Amino acid sequence: MNAFETRRNRLYDWMAMEGVTLAMFEDFEGRRDPSLRWLTGQPGDALLFLSLNKQSLLVPWDSNMAALYAQADMVIPYAEFDRQPIKALQVAAEIFKIPFGSKVEIPGVTPYPVFLQYVEALNDFDVLCRNSGIQEAAQQLRAIKDEEEIRIYRKAADITNNLITLLENDLRSGKLKTETDVALFIETEGRRQGSDGTGFETLAAGPVRSFGIHAYPPYTGGPFATPGMSILDFGLKYSGYTTDVTLTFVRGALSSHQEKMLALTEKAYKLALSMIEDGVSARKVALSVDALFEKAKKAMPHGLGHGIGLEAHEAPALRSRHDNTWQLKPGMIFTLEPGLYDPLMGGCRLENDILLSDAGAEVLTKARIIRL
Amino acid sequence: MNAFETRRNRLYDWMAMEGVTLAMFEDFEGRRDPSLRWLTGQPGDALLFLSLNKQSLLVPWDSNMAALYAQADMVIPYAEFDRQPIKALQVAAEIFKIPFGSKVEIPGVTPYPVFLQYVEALNDFDVLCRNSGIQEAAQQLRAIKDEEEIRIYRKAADITNNLITLLENDLRSGKLKTETDVALFIETEGRRQGSDGTGFETLAAGPVRSFGIHAYPPYTGGPFATPGMSILDFGLKYSGYTTDVTLTFVRGALSSHQEKMLALTEKAYKLALSMIEDGVSARKVALSVDALFEKAKKAMPHGLGHGIGLEAHEAPALRSRHDNTWQLKPGMIFTLEPGLYDPLMGGCRLENDILLSDAGAEVLTKARIIRL
Repeated sequence: MNAFETRRNRLYDWMAMEGVTLAMFEDFEGRRDPSLRWLTGQPGDALLFLSLNKQSLLVPWDSNMAALYAQADMVIPYAEFDRQPIKALQVAAEIFKIPFGSKVEIPGVTPYPVFLQYVEALNDFDVLCRNSGIQEAAQQLRAIKDEEEIRIYRKAADITNNLITLLENDLRSGKLKTETDVALFIETEGRRQGSDGTGFETLAAGPVRSFGIHAYPPYTGGPFATPGMSILDFGLKYSGYTTDVTLTFVRGALSSHQEKMLALTEKAYKLALSMIEDGVSARKVALSVDALFEKAKKAMPHGLGHGIGLEAHEAPALRSRHDNTWQLKPGMIFTLEPGLYDPLMGGCRLENDILLSDAGAEVLTKARIIRL
Repeated sequence: MNAFETRRNRLYDWMAMEGVTLAMFEDFEGRRDPSLRWLTGQPGDALLFLSLNKQSLLVPWDSNMAALYAQADMVIPYAEFDRQPIKALQVAAEIFKIPFGSKVEIPGVTPYPVFLQYVEALNDFDVLCRNSGIQEAAQQLRAIKDEEEIRIYRKAADITNNLITLLENDLRSGKLKTETDVALFIETEGRRQGSDGTGFETLAAGPVRSFGIHAYPPYTGGPFATPGMSILDFGLKYSGYTTDVTLTFVRGALSSHQEKMLALTEKAYKLALSMIEDGVSARKVALSVDALFEKAKKAMPHGLGHGIGLEAHEAPALRSRHDNTWQLKPGMIFTLEPGLYDPLMGGCRLENDILLSDAGAEVLTKARIIRL
């Protein structure tokens, strides 16, 4: 049995438990769901139907791509349904002989007006559209990496760490001068070292732009790692999985306020890391960091961290929002990324990728605050 | 009055006509809406509230960024609402003194389970969530570019065309050898020529990978523009607006089947272009191209084209799906991109950016099928 079948089987079990007879996954522009890739290998742009009798139907936009990459019991090109998901769902219900009145689950992200269309078109079925549906179940399964995924992450982290060393050298020597130099070095050298490329658009913000949480534009021809604080946020993909690290490069003497920002950020990072253990509430960790900053009359304008995987932002969430119920568990790989930003002083952030294993927290990547 | 105010005023008029008292725009990961940037200048990650009494409230994730880029009557950081859109909407209703029972419009893409939360939290109001709501009205307005936007597009097209010339030379001479060479050349040279960077991830697929509509991975270390058909799909941003072109590079002798694919693609492109005029149904143009391919026993597995703007895929849609009601109008800028793909022979696509003006169709970009 291959990995895709194993994963689908876990969802068939979930369907049996929940009494869901037919379930649909959707991965198209505007409503991306990497679970579809995780369940079939299809890189994207497809629908997937799972039936309680353990059969899968993939409906790809690009059937040439599916022939090369995807694994499912049946494949029917999207064009045959006039590129309409509702038609595809109706045919899937026929193919799998889903009895009238059965529970049919569509993605929980389905817009309300579209949900109404499904309900009308499938009035012989009980159409479910829930936050806690099968798509969330898949997300929860994906949050715990299997052995192969952890092996992939060790390799992705190695490549990322090699890049960090090279970046430090080339920034110290002045070989890399601008934000664009740095971003394109990562594109080129990351691939040369065996990664698939970057996992998201690199954010390189020199001292005059590092006040932005996510610099806009992501990188420019402006100077990087000149006197002050520069932020570099990047990730490299390997076998589809991306790392996500942030370094702060410091050059020259800083003001005492800037030094305080750096010290607090490092302190927050260490505090968070010290709290990572099996069963800890992700919200509790985030709240502790918020409290640390608040005591120093500072505030972090973003979450503390997030799971990583086929996309840069995945489950679990490590943030202090009241509705965050995630508990950290062995097999999870996630970031810790405290940061502070000041419109005049610039910003700093420190982000590493952490694997929680039975032995505790393991820091896979080697991002840090680097003084040049 | 600045451009943002002018644009918001057009939506206030729409609200008066529709009896909508408060409207919300949302631009966050997973639910992107560039209308927010078009209405305020904020690059992303924010909420925007418009009230019928012509007041706007921006709720940015990054308030440093908002201070630099955004224009709105009021700005309150997202963190003050515990990063919860529903809380922000409730406060906006208070600030703007929205009378109970009024129509309050949330984005039409709001997931059904989230819609239920809005309805519960805002039970004093009539919560609207429609396909044809204010977000679609904004899309329709954005589909018609104003003079400044057209000026921007002429500049973006110039840079794109310069790149096309350079790419042709460097591929012919063999200076650029791999997919990665080509993609990184576009990143570097596009910026050097004054663009903000690429508008989306470049797709560079050499002969062995050009069968994919959207190659995966987008580019690799493999050969590009070697014997056979290679596809290059890229766009360059200028002042936030992106072009979107696709070239097919041909080297060596092709099979008669490959030559037929190329000839049909060019014929389809010319047919579509000849039909572009004020008031033409976009679906009719797409159906004509489908019919041309069908007569030759071929099928194009994707739509004929799409509007471009702050994102690569915007309104209007040029596709043959039954629900496509778009009519082409002066001021629209959109792509035409017929293509054919064969798992054994490879693929070809030709895509240019077209401005429809009162004088007719003007092809802004110079992509073509290039024989090396």
